[in-house]
Amino acid sequence: MRNSIGREIPAQFLRGGREVYQGPFYREGYIYQKAAPSVRASVSPRASKVVSSLTEAIIKCGLRDGMCVSFHHHFRDGDYVLCMVMDAIAALGIKDITICASSLGDAHTSIVKYMEDGTITGISSSGVRGAIGEAISLGKLKTPAMIRSHGGRVRAIECGDIHIDIAFIGAPTSDCTGNARGKGGKSDCGVLSYSAVDARYADHVVVVTDCLVEFPNLPASIQGIDVDYVVVVDEVGDPTKITNATLRYTTDPRELMIADYAARIMRHTPYFRDGFSFQTGGGGPSLAVTRFLRPYMEELGIKMGFAMGGITRPIVELLEAGFIRMVVDAQDFDLASVKSVNSCPNHVEITTAQYANPLNKGAFVNRLDYVILGALEVDLDFHVNVVTGSDGIIRGAPGGHVDTSAGSRCSIIVTPLCRSRIPTIRDRVLTVTTPGETVDIVVTEVGVAVNPRRPDLLEALRDAPVPILTIEELKERAYALVGIPDPIRFTERVVALIEYRDGTIIDVVYQIAE
Amino acid sequence: MRNSIGREIPAQFLRGGREVYQGPFYREGYIYQKAAPSVRASVSPRASKVVSSLTEAIIKCGLRDGMCVSFHHHFRDGDYVLCMVMDAIAALGIKDITICASSLGDAHTSIVKYMEDGTITGISSSGVRGAIGEAISLGKLKTPAMIRSHGGRVRAIECGDIHIDIAFIGAPTSDCTGNARGKGGKSDCGVLSYSAVDARYADHVVVVTDCLVEFPNLPASIQGIDVDYVVVVDEVGDPTKITNATLRYTTDPRELMIADYAARIMRHTPYFRDGFSFQTGGGGPSLAVTRFLRPYMEELGIKMGFAMGGITRPIVELLEAGFIRMVVDAQDFDLASVKSVNSCPNHVEITTAQYANPLNKGAFVNRLDYVILGALEVDLDFHVNVVTGSDGIIRGAPGGHVDTSAGSRCSIIVTPLCRSRIPTIRDRVLTVTTPGETVDIVVTEVGVAVNPRRPDLLEALRDAPVPILTIEELKERAYALVGIPDPIRFTERVVALIEYRDGTIIDVVYQIAE
Repeated sequence: MRNSIGREIPAQFLRGGREVYQGPFYREGYIYQKAAPSVRASVSPRASKVVSSLTEAIIKCGLRDGMCVSFHHHFRDGDYVLCMVMDAIAALGIKDITICASSLGDAHTSIVKYMEDGTITGISSSGVRGAIGEAISLGKLKTPAMIRSHGGRVRAIECGDIHIDIAFIGAPTSDCTGNARGKGGKSDCGVLSYSAVDARYADHVVVVTDCLVEFPNLPASIQGIDVDYVVVVDEVGDPTKITNATLRYTTDPRELMIADYAARIMRHTPYFRDGFSFQTGGGGPSLAVTRFLRPYMEELGIKMGFAMGGITRPIVELLEAGFIRMVVDAQDFDLASVKSVNSCPNHVEITTAQYANPLNKGAFVNRLDYVILGALEVDLDFHVNVVTGSDGIIRGAPGGHVDTSAGSRCSIIVTPLCRSRIPTIRDRVLTVTTPGETVDIVVTEVGVAVNPRRPDLLEALRDAPVPILTIEELKERAYALVGIPDPIRFTERVVALIEYRDGTIIDVVYQIAE
Repeated sequence: MRNSIGREIPAQFLRGGREVYQGPFYREGYIYQKAAPSVRASVSPRASKVVSSLTEAIIKCGLRDGMCVSFHHHFRDGDYVLCMVMDAIAALGIKDITICASSLGDAHTSIVKYMEDGTITGISSSGVRGAIGEAISLGKLKTPAMIRSHGGRVRAIECGDIHIDIAFIGAPTSDCTGNARGKGGKSDCGVLSYSAVDARYADHVVVVTDCLVEFPNLPASIQGIDVDYVVVVDEVGDPTKITNATLRYTTDPRELMIADYAARIMRHTPYFRDGFSFQTGGGGPSLAVTRFLRPYMEELGIKMGFAMGGITRPIVELLEAGFIRMVVDAQDFDLASVKSVNSCPNHVEITTAQYANPLNKGAFVNRLDYVILGALEVDLDFHVNVVTGSDGIIRGAPGGHVDTSAGSRCSIIVTPLCRSRIPTIRDRVLTVTTPGETVDIVVTEVGVAVNPRRPDLLEALRDAPVPILTIEELKERAYALVGIPDPIRFTERVVALIEYRDGTIIDVVYQIAE
């Protein structure tokens, strides 16, 4: 069945009420009953939750073949918990497990073997970078991976589309009852935003920590009243690896030029006034935009109302310099932001549900003025691909891309025109992850294209000191430089479904032909 | 049907799976699926939630005859919200409403007329003081009132025993999306702990505020993602009336003597060591105990790990003097505690779910070493009555009494032997609210009785400088002073059910014969 942006979704994936994508705000006013976990009451005083090993916790929670376990990725490339738990599950001989992760990356390469031996047969994740993405694209996972945005993951859990049997939550600190925080200890990751929904909707919740602290560990990101067991391990993660390769402080002149253009655009749009709100992704040009904003804010004598998202050092510096009233933190991308959320009262943790679930009563993304986002590909319909690479292999993450793009007043994609002699701006993206209806402006080093759906922005930018082109012109420039891209060869087997944030299917990814 | 402590519960109240009380830890390990609200998604960016009046909010939420609305009592005698909302509901001609309040008191006297005219036909509350209690005892409410402890109220909502159609949450500050706090504004009440469960489990949530602040109002006690509408009114409450008549800083020598005895007992029990945890109720002798603790802590060189509960000035003073590591706050009983929770990082708000829900995975009450509680009556089985007065009329509140008594290592009841020539210690309490199985020690001005179920405590107190008597001896002393109490005359109509915290029925209250 063809969805509203013309992508064909095979009927076999539309069972059980699942629908094809029908526009970004199709589910406005949708009424549903929230999911709810099964709970085992602990009435007796002073019952102990601390167990001696992950294996003991897994057994006590009753993990069986076919169940679903969940994880967060606040430690990013430094996460130890997911692999430790999967090793323990595999050692118990339990098969057919679905992993519901907020993201998967280079820290998790060792689980590819469990995709091959049938321990893991399902994956729901935002990102699937590195070897896991390759394994999925090569057809090694039994069922199609479900790629969900950060908001979409919360939605799927809160709506009951995915039911977590056991949530394993790596925590820098926990008390004996499972009150857990991203703060303190030896593996401080700042916040535990992704796990909040897991703790509230999973039947069983296991907190895994390397620093057991005195009761009560407050204010708690994960509440002990939702936790069944606490396991103390040697190390839950390596915080120095929170800053991974995807987060770059660029010095590339081309990327700096793109960032400069994006800041100029913001300066000339009507939302750039005192109290404006802002989010930026972690890519090189995206991050660099923050550095170009300060002179404009000084010029106009304005401050940012709130900055949100994955937080990085440039945002923390603006906060400390008094240019931001509040930093709203759903993830820390570096140690500077970890330190800030620990110490600054105007730097506040929120849950991913607050951040981006499209089907609650109004997520924070809905209050964003600007978001700056990257892209692997952008096409003539302004559709963006952030999941499949130029070789057709899954190597990216929608993350909050889709959520912020839909929620913000002005979504700005920053991307070089070409990468390694492959055009970024093209006729048609390989995979649609963010629909063009929610993309307002595309910024490259040769110029800027405004989505024709936003004549107001085109008008506002009439006098902005940036070259304004059409998206077709940007594409022509790209093709003129590097030629028409070669098509990629795929098999007919679907290896991943791209779920739009509201639960509809926006695209599918096929297994690559080897 | 007779329950495990011999109270007769009429069969008509045991329909739909409701059970009689069977011991304080009867539901240990009980497995159930949590309730879940129906939600209307707000996907579109910047949709406004601010409506012009309570009436508009009520209409937009679709309130109809027979529905249930909820309220908190953080403003105590200064609450304006409940009466404003009920006036608006009555003006719309809506009937047969159940009120699910965390407590009802003198601020709500004006709703008695709605009990008489059929606007309100059901009440679920912890406390029902003043004119409302009288009206219930006189049979003016169509259905029996359900008296629930603070933990029991959360349990009832989270288990689905009571379903809230619209929660009205009075908030000192809110932003336009409903992120609400007990802090700031002109009606600062400190915390919004009681309302957290309402916001998460009600189908519709209306935040009522007199101070609309800039988005985002963080950290939020009530999350905007759960809020449908925001109504701005002139005043939500009078914080100077938070300290009501039930909270007393006693100078009565008899009450001070009782408090002194209670502190001596604590000093001689094994839990009085560094890191001990403590809660006290708001009655005169209970509150006074806190003042007697400091010398013993100085003597032993120990600090309190955490103090919990309704917080008052004596606790804040101990915190400020460095004798308490953390204050865990579910309600502020005076302006000193409101100020402290606003400014002190070691004074932290928790929800009532965290505080006391017996059927979650382990509430904070389960970590209490000591709780000091009052009583209207205590009997030879150590059963306590905190609901019905000596005239048989409902005039009290179980509050957290039942929850802390069950959860704590050592529950201490402080009460004068007699009040106004009526014995407090008696053969049989009129109404059992807290079962004797969870009451460890009773302290009066003439001596102290230890529950025979706790030979360990009796042994520990062997050398304590307090007169140790049996509960029978205390009763004999009381009866010798003021005589045997006259029986109270009741009709055969049940006007209130006393629900134990786990959802079973521990006692019933009959209509008084006029």
